Amino acid sequence: MELWYTEEHTDNVRFSIKVKQQLFSGQSDFQKVDVFDSEEFGRFFTLDGLMMVNEKDEFVYHDMIVHPAMASNPEIKRVLVIGAGDGGTVRELTRYKSLEQIDMVEIDKMVVDVCREYLPQTACKLDDPRVNLYFEDGVAFVKKQKNFYDLVIVDSTDPIGPGEGLFTTEFYQDCYDALTENGILVNQSESPYYPQYVHEFKRSYGKISKIFPLSKTYQFHIPTYPSGHWLFGFASKGIDPVNNERVQEWNELGLETQYYNTDIHKGAFMLPNFVKNMMKEVKENA
Amino acid sequence: MELWYTEEHTDNVRFSIKVKQQLFSGQSDFQKVDVFDSEEFGRFFTLDGLMMVNEKDEFVYHDMIVHPAMASNPEIKRVLVIGAGDGGTVRELTRYKSLEQIDMVEIDKMVVDVCREYLPQTACKLDDPRVNLYFEDGVAFVKKQKNFYDLVIVDSTDPIGPGEGLFTTEFYQDCYDALTENGILVNQSESPYYPQYVHEFKRSYGKISKIFPLSKTYQFHIPTYPSGHWLFGFASKGIDPVNNERVQEWNELGLETQYYNTDIHKGAFMLPNFVKNMMKEVKENA
Repeated sequence: MELWYTEEHTDNVRFSIKVKQQLFSGQSDFQKVDVFDSEEFGRFFTLDGLMMVNEKDEFVYHDMIVHPAMASNPEIKRVLVIGAGDGGTVRELTRYKSLEQIDMVEIDKMVVDVCREYLPQTACKLDDPRVNLYFEDGVAFVKKQKNFYDLVIVDSTDPIGPGEGLFTTEFYQDCYDALTENGILVNQSESPYYPQYVHEFKRSYGKISKIFPLSKTYQFHIPTYPSGHWLFGFASKGIDPVNNERVQEWNELGLETQYYNTDIHKGAFMLPNFVKNMMKEVKENA
Repeated sequence: MELWYTEEHTDNVRFSIKVKQQLFSGQSDFQKVDVFDSEEFGRFFTLDGLMMVNEKDEFVYHDMIVHPAMASNPEIKRVLVIGAGDGGTVRELTRYKSLEQIDMVEIDKMVVDVCREYLPQTACKLDDPRVNLYFEDGVAFVKKQKNFYDLVIVDSTDPIGPGEGLFTTEFYQDCYDALTENGILVNQSESPYYPQYVHEFKRSYGKISKIFPLSKTYQFHIPTYPSGHWLFGFASKGIDPVNNERVQEWNELGLETQYYNTDIHKGAFMLPNFVKNMMKEVKENA
């Protein structure tokens, strides 16, 4: 017998992974949660049938969602993470001794419980004393905070289902208000390749650009996401990730990473023309 | 009825494309040649069941195999292209008025004939007066040339089947000898993600590094190749693609491109640590 997990990247494109066994399947109040084991990617977990994290390439995603912002401002003390139930983002954050407070708000406790049990590779640092876990709606949580966090990371699913509220203008404005004067917002921004992802990238970028004085996009290679070409947004009240002399200080921390380095930091912001053109189009129509 | 094309990216990973219709199927002396039409990628052609080129993202591959070298040395006059039967590499080269001679050596005439008929998007410039088409073995062809070409582009298939000879030390040495004193070699270098591709990348990089004084690697996003994370090698007798003031001159040519720009030129050479570590390992074991 062969067992194959298949994800529809679009109506016309499928990505399939040979599965050794299914380790967990459950329905939370918000979404379907599944965990599989595979030869190629090790363990992986899916939400509503979409790949979230796997043991082989989660390092790419988590390096890139954390280190560019942390290197851009070595003074960051307080971080708010929204979503990120697998724990990988928090794991990378806890490597910074300089951080004092990491608040993580995940709407779905089942995701965290399941990842603690089946994906210790990512969930291993959720008990760090600086980490506060809140199982509630990130949209409501961020609304209560003013001028408090130096960094907000929106590690969301796609803007369908529980992640939807994390792609609205109101939410991005609340993030702005929750940030200190040197604040940075990093957000999962989908892909520039398949049309439905492009649509969401443009919407998200357009909204954030209107609120934050600085709004950039950076890219990375994550082969298990649709197209493998993925984007994060970097918005701030002034801190520039690219023209930034302090980025080099990151090397003095001695953190070992498999994807991020201070060259990639710059290179990731150098985008292909077709992505730059999308951003230009959004700004012109704003 | 639904028709799906499926490619095995590894024994455990499959990539499938919904096909509108098959346009051509033939067996040449060297390989199986198929052309399909699809909603998502437009027309695409495969060799021995592996995706070579499709209308949606061929621009990425052809931008990146041509422009980094051409921008690194605006004095390039004579180019040798090995493989590249779809014509996309030649199409990009013909945009440079400064080029005097473009020799293209493709072992399999059927590939060129089929692409002329079904993929005019890439094959459209094969009749440029500066282009000389040779249907013969690239390995034998390059052996006859000494100190003649300013740029050799090895636009090969994987090192299995007809592409195999294009990954040997002897061939790379012949490329070196065929190049002028400012010569550049660009070669298709596989992917750093799935193990069998990593193996070929390392072998190729290791061999070229021993022959050329400068040997670098650059990356780009091509979603229809296995993992979508693809590499090209850039080797030269001295010209450095990165620390190179002349690259900016490329902007004065006014070429419109969808992927390449002089920022991506630099960014593409900024590699993730896991790729840098592979290169380091190869050099240490050399």
